[in-house]
Amino acid sequence: MSKLSTESYKGVRDFYPEDKFIQNYIFGVMRSTVESFGYSEYDASILEPAELYKAKSGEEIVNEQTYTFTDRGEREVTLRPEMTPTVARMVAARSRELTFPLRWYSIPNLFRYEKPQRGRLREHWQLNVDLFGATGVSADAEVITVAYMVMKNLGAKDDDFTIKLNSRKLLQDLFAIFALDAEQSQRVTKLLDKKEKLDPSDFTTGITEVIGDKAEKFVALVSSNENLLEQLTDKDSAKDLINLIEILSAQGVKNVEFVPSITRGFDYYTGMVFEVFDTNPENSRALFGGGRYDDLLDMFGVDKVPTVGFGMGDVTATDFLAVRNLLPTYHSPAELYICVLKSDYVSNATALAHALRAEHVNVSIDLSGKKVGDQIKIADKQKIPYILVIGEDEIKTDMYTLKNLETGVEEKLDIAGIVAKLKK
Amino acid sequence: MSKLSTESYKGVRDFYPEDKFIQNYIFGVMRSTVESFGYSEYDASILEPAELYKAKSGEEIVNEQTYTFTDRGEREVTLRPEMTPTVARMVAARSRELTFPLRWYSIPNLFRYEKPQRGRLREHWQLNVDLFGATGVSADAEVITVAYMVMKNLGAKDDDFTIKLNSRKLLQDLFAIFALDAEQSQRVTKLLDKKEKLDPSDFTTGITEVIGDKAEKFVALVSSNENLLEQLTDKDSAKDLINLIEILSAQGVKNVEFVPSITRGFDYYTGMVFEVFDTNPENSRALFGGGRYDDLLDMFGVDKVPTVGFGMGDVTATDFLAVRNLLPTYHSPAELYICVLKSDYVSNATALAHALRAEHVNVSIDLSGKKVGDQIKIADKQKIPYILVIGEDEIKTDMYTLKNLETGVEEKLDIAGIVAKLKK
Repeated sequence: MSKLSTESYKGVRDFYPEDKFIQNYIFGVMRSTVESFGYSEYDASILEPAELYKAKSGEEIVNEQTYTFTDRGEREVTLRPEMTPTVARMVAARSRELTFPLRWYSIPNLFRYEKPQRGRLREHWQLNVDLFGATGVSADAEVITVAYMVMKNLGAKDDDFTIKLNSRKLLQDLFAIFALDAEQSQRVTKLLDKKEKLDPSDFTTGITEVIGDKAEKFVALVSSNENLLEQLTDKDSAKDLINLIEILSAQGVKNVEFVPSITRGFDYYTGMVFEVFDTNPENSRALFGGGRYDDLLDMFGVDKVPTVGFGMGDVTATDFLAVRNLLPTYHSPAELYICVLKSDYVSNATALAHALRAEHVNVSIDLSGKKVGDQIKIADKQKIPYILVIGEDEIKTDMYTLKNLETGVEEKLDIAGIVAKLKK
Repeated sequence: MSKLSTESYKGVRDFYPEDKFIQNYIFGVMRSTVESFGYSEYDASILEPAELYKAKSGEEIVNEQTYTFTDRGEREVTLRPEMTPTVARMVAARSRELTFPLRWYSIPNLFRYEKPQRGRLREHWQLNVDLFGATGVSADAEVITVAYMVMKNLGAKDDDFTIKLNSRKLLQDLFAIFALDAEQSQRVTKLLDKKEKLDPSDFTTGITEVIGDKAEKFVALVSSNENLLEQLTDKDSAKDLINLIEILSAQGVKNVEFVPSITRGFDYYTGMVFEVFDTNPENSRALFGGGRYDDLLDMFGVDKVPTVGFGMGDVTATDFLAVRNLLPTYHSPAELYICVLKSDYVSNATALAHALRAEHVNVSIDLSGKKVGDQIKIADKQKIPYILVIGEDEIKTDMYTLKNLETGVEEKLDIAGIVAKLKK
């Protein structure tokens, strides 16, 4: 038989227990944080009808970056590249039965066909948080606060990240002042999205190509949030943005700034948009973001459900935490490894393990048939913190010497004593 | 714009919060049970190189029942139909660094292209538990005990299910007595696998077609576990099987029987095989199963790692529990819903919610802008157990009337009192 490769498919990850432990830690913090705000978990299949992605968002995504194939029943299927169309479909399907405002979250895996690189893989996971059926600045503030609290609960400090805010409505008001048509607005939005990565003169050149000699005034405005707000001071969009920043500050979310070039990639945003940036100067980039999209359900022909939400990917989050030493150290789910002096004693070890498990102590027993010294090495390598050895004495007396493998400290204990020690 | 369908892809499920709640409950019991035996969680992508499924198992699976497609880089990719090849690949990739015996589990989603029907969907989840690098009856007994404990911890009683055991080695010894060649052995194994579903005369006819006039004696033997064990009494395979049943019984796993027709579908089993059956006469069928496969890593060209494990699907498990009323009732992750008498008080509600969340109480605040009566209806419909209303008095006194929506009981409490009440 020819030898099969042990490599995974290109651009995806194998999660060995040490990796899954980290992922479970991050997902656990995400879950407990969003649930503290009352968000309920939903989920769906990674397989979606391809039509779902044709109606909306950038054409680029649909045509070049999705995994789309035809099934044996001639249906076109896509591996979901993002969760928003799926959750919109689910809410639309039950829009009459569901009670709004609705707080929902999910941590789906998502797929995109692209060249794998740091922070961009073909499969990644993403916390998706959405507040459906609530308009107004308070709803926007809640969702940004949830994002902030996820960061804080993962151990980030306020100066580790900045929340950059903008408003699509405010941009529309700005475009109206410059009398831009729909096509010009879209092109300018795309340029704004790239502004931070472009050389200033290239940005100005790009804007000039679209709007001509009004470009200079435009560039000056979008390069200064103060000037821009002053220009739009009588608009609701500007008032809402200022109000939002004040509410967030009152709630203790102070690492927030208005940045006119934040637009988010997708066309479906209709109001507030935000991106969370790493403040590390060597790694200054958007970690994740979100915003308001009030028209998302239109394509399903149901009544409007104004929505605000965000998505936070696991790959960038893990990188962010790793650089700051904020990730926990792996240990086995087993708290105790029971070694056996002779293989005859496996049944005694099993009975002891059974008694301890009933008291919620996680226990593995040795089945290697190796010498005790080698059994202890197994426990140590597998990051199991405690061991004990079963021999004739232990079976006779029902007393055990519990050893902490890290400190080397030993204690002679009965079963109740072991439970008390390990459940501390 | 034409109206998009809100239906999911055929044969997969949307998990609304009520559904995800049930799935999370089942997965939670699975996790805590297998971790109590010290099994560590691993994971991998659903995308695998198609080659992984060509080397092994039934051809039927590879050719007709997988989702296989060609990616834009001309790679053949398969959505994993089972987890065993993936975990074998992962263990083989690090077979020199890993420390055996190794206890691993995962709860992956799996895909198969088939006609959806009760208990068989195109996507399902499956608990996979494997003990790598341990030979012997004690290892077999541990894995069966883990399966038993998952059932018990899900609330099943001993008489709700039976564990049917057999041994591929014992079947080989039986086939040797009848001098069957490899091809005959495989055909007879397939017939045995179908025995319980076939009419007895059809089974005998099938066996006669393969082995001729020795069929009558063969059928008599495989129809009586006592006669069969007597015939093979001097074989290690029979001794091991008897020993295994004794060990399980000593560990309290008594709903076990030797059934010679249990073979499991896959060709890769080499020793003990088992299936857990629902004992409900109206629904007597295999819920899940597993066994020993010692040669699985051969295809990767690494040293043998004897392995025993099982896989337990979520669809059959959920059906089993639903029929017996063993599933929990949905409630929101929010324990408290804060209603606001006027929308001016949202900031007060937010501050109160913030203080309660810091004490690990999960709180949602109303952002609907509706009348208080309608706000309370929202909490009730969303299965949030407690509410309170913020008005002028509450803001002045910092005392709140906490109402249990199920019992209607009200209590006047300060923040510490609310925390004490809700954390009970």
